Amino acid sequence: MIYFDNSATTAVNPMVLRTYTDVATKIMGNPSSLHGLGTTATRLLEASRRQIAELLGVDSQEIFFTSGGTEGDNWILKGVAFEKRPYGNHIIVSNVEHPAVKNTAEWLKTQGFEVDFAPVDGDGFVIVSELEKLIRDETILISIMAVNNEVGTIQPIGEISDLLADKPTISFHVDAVQAIGKIPLEAWLTERVDFAVLSAHKFHGPRGVGIVVAKKGKRLTPLLHGGGQEHNWRSTTENLAGIAATSKALRLALDDDDFKRQKVRAMKQVILEELEKHRKVHVFSKVENFAPNILTFGIRGVRGEVVVHAFEQHEIYISTTSACSSKKNAAAGTLVAMNVPSKLATSAVRISLDSTNNMAEVEQFLTVFRQIYQELEKVSG
Amino acid sequence: MIYFDNSATTAVNPMVLRTYTDVATKIMGNPSSLHGLGTTATRLLEASRRQIAELLGVDSQEIFFTSGGTEGDNWILKGVAFEKRPYGNHIIVSNVEHPAVKNTAEWLKTQGFEVDFAPVDGDGFVIVSELEKLIRDETILISIMAVNNEVGTIQPIGEISDLLADKPTISFHVDAVQAIGKIPLEAWLTERVDFAVLSAHKFHGPRGVGIVVAKKGKRLTPLLHGGGQEHNWRSTTENLAGIAATSKALRLALDDDDFKRQKVRAMKQVILEELEKHRKVHVFSKVENFAPNILTFGIRGVRGEVVVHAFEQHEIYISTTSACSSKKNAAAGTLVAMNVPSKLATSAVRISLDSTNNMAEVEQFLTVFRQIYQELEKVSG
Repeated sequence: MIYFDNSATTAVNPMVLRTYTDVATKIMGNPSSLHGLGTTATRLLEASRRQIAELLGVDSQEIFFTSGGTEGDNWILKGVAFEKRPYGNHIIVSNVEHPAVKNTAEWLKTQGFEVDFAPVDGDGFVIVSELEKLIRDETILISIMAVNNEVGTIQPIGEISDLLADKPTISFHVDAVQAIGKIPLEAWLTERVDFAVLSAHKFHGPRGVGIVVAKKGKRLTPLLHGGGQEHNWRSTTENLAGIAATSKALRLALDDDDFKRQKVRAMKQVILEELEKHRKVHVFSKVENFAPNILTFGIRGVRGEVVVHAFEQHEIYISTTSACSSKKNAAAGTLVAMNVPSKLATSAVRISLDSTNNMAEVEQFLTVFRQIYQELEKVSG
Repeated sequence: MIYFDNSATTAVNPMVLRTYTDVATKIMGNPSSLHGLGTTATRLLEASRRQIAELLGVDSQEIFFTSGGTEGDNWILKGVAFEKRPYGNHIIVSNVEHPAVKNTAEWLKTQGFEVDFAPVDGDGFVIVSELEKLIRDETILISIMAVNNEVGTIQPIGEISDLLADKPTISFHVDAVQAIGKIPLEAWLTERVDFAVLSAHKFHGPRGVGIVVAKKGKRLTPLLHGGGQEHNWRSTTENLAGIAATSKALRLALDDDDFKRQKVRAMKQVILEELEKHRKVHVFSKVENFAPNILTFGIRGVRGEVVVHAFEQHEIYISTTSACSSKKNAAAGTLVAMNVPSKLATSAVRISLDSTNNMAEVEQFLTVFRQIYQELEKVSG
């Protein structure tokens, strides 16, 4: 089996799973409990938080745990919106955000907020000058993803940070779910970024755990009200085993991450060069300013799901762009936003690589690709 | 070690943990993925949902997964409120709800909803005639817990169901986090109940997984918008290992549950009889209409945390009522609602038993209790 669908989800690292089971077995207390079992649990919770903060270069008071990327994005968008409603009701998100951001923004429209969707260029990059034009006095929040999940564009977070440097009343949120480990930290966690979101299962951590970075002094209305955990910001009994495992997974993900990125980039490069030799192939994911792990392409005239299933016959797993959109039989939202013609857009498939993949897998993938291409070229008209 | 704090959290069952690790290791696909790994994941997800539905006697389409009891309560309260706002803005919750309900209701007040808190009698039972008086034409939601977490009262869900029989426009939510396995299903999941919430870590399942029962035809605005999972009701990549483990945990919890309840009730009875022999002991948790596993009492004139720490010296773990309130150094909300005088209320401690406890532990607990009582009686004035 060759798994090239790592942007959908990654296999949990066995060492991370061991941390999970160790904690679940040995540390049974509820961190909220007054007694010693609670204290032990709290100590591990805070050690995990500290390690994650150190790895991200922020303060441990700036780290909050959630159930995943979707909850993080929902919390930040709704939390900022409800918190800052007295000061303004305008929100800007990019036109290529993950549905966790886009659909949350759509819902906020039903609650009296105004939302603008910042356009992207033909390659999928947010056009900063267009974003600037959308900013108003009432703008309270701008949300831009660091790495697009469907084509791998690295969005200009640095440039947007500069744009917002003299606009301190606008909260700046970055969905970094596809960025962590894939591009350097400084490319998305700038000083100007107020909030950021991660998801553990995208970096070999457990499902059901997410991280929110919320910079000091920034406020959020809770999404989960209740017993007052996480300094009253996110109530619920803490998933301690999941959190400790996430801390481990993040450490492993950021360990030697430069080297891992080079390895992944080299694999992408080899695939890209081969793909480009084929007349009917259209490549959406370039190299420069694109994530090193994502390669989205299409065989003209062949629907993406046909290609996915053809590879699957050879136990090679790729995806029709994002996992979330794959069952909906619709073109990827990012490609639509890029004004890719519908027929070309529905041909798109996404390869998402990981440092656990290797060049032998790439060679095997390409052997199968050539075979599939030959078969499909005949029928693609 | 004797762990009598099972209402705070339970130890994960080793068989449940094995299910978790098996799934996390062997089933790596994202259920949203188009390819075979996604299909395998979806199949297990739906098998877990079906098993849980069967165990609860509902349809599998009525089962949704969340990150825990708190998210479930937040989702149902906010989801019903936002969904039904055009029809009314009045919500009733009992005065002894868990903070996940109470604080959510308080927040809804800031969003233009009116909330009434239904009073309880001196023993902690919701007074149904008083609840009835609070109902108005604008009432859209009533939320009452099945078993109170601080003193163990079994709330009159059947009686309230009768009251609401001819009021179909009012959504009826039951927080059953402390009820599952502890009282029979039919005592809280009546036909009239529209929504109910469970939390896996209260029945030896993993942390970070909850169940929402939402009866067919009932609508909820999502709390987590995004990729469209759970029929678009609760987006986020599904925590498959956690969900499969929860399904296993629920099966084990409801296996022979009558017998387990008898066992736990017998242990409570023995402790109760001994406690009542002591002049300065005040018992809040009676037997009839109280959960068989919860026994809340106080030693007059001695603060609860002093008693908790005294037991901890002997490696016996109990709690100052709920885990959530235990660090706040305040009297339990339930006791305040019961009009228990402040000094008596702050003496309260909670024993919460489980079928994994045994009579030898009870005997040891009582030996230590007699010793502690003797020491504290002298200083309690």
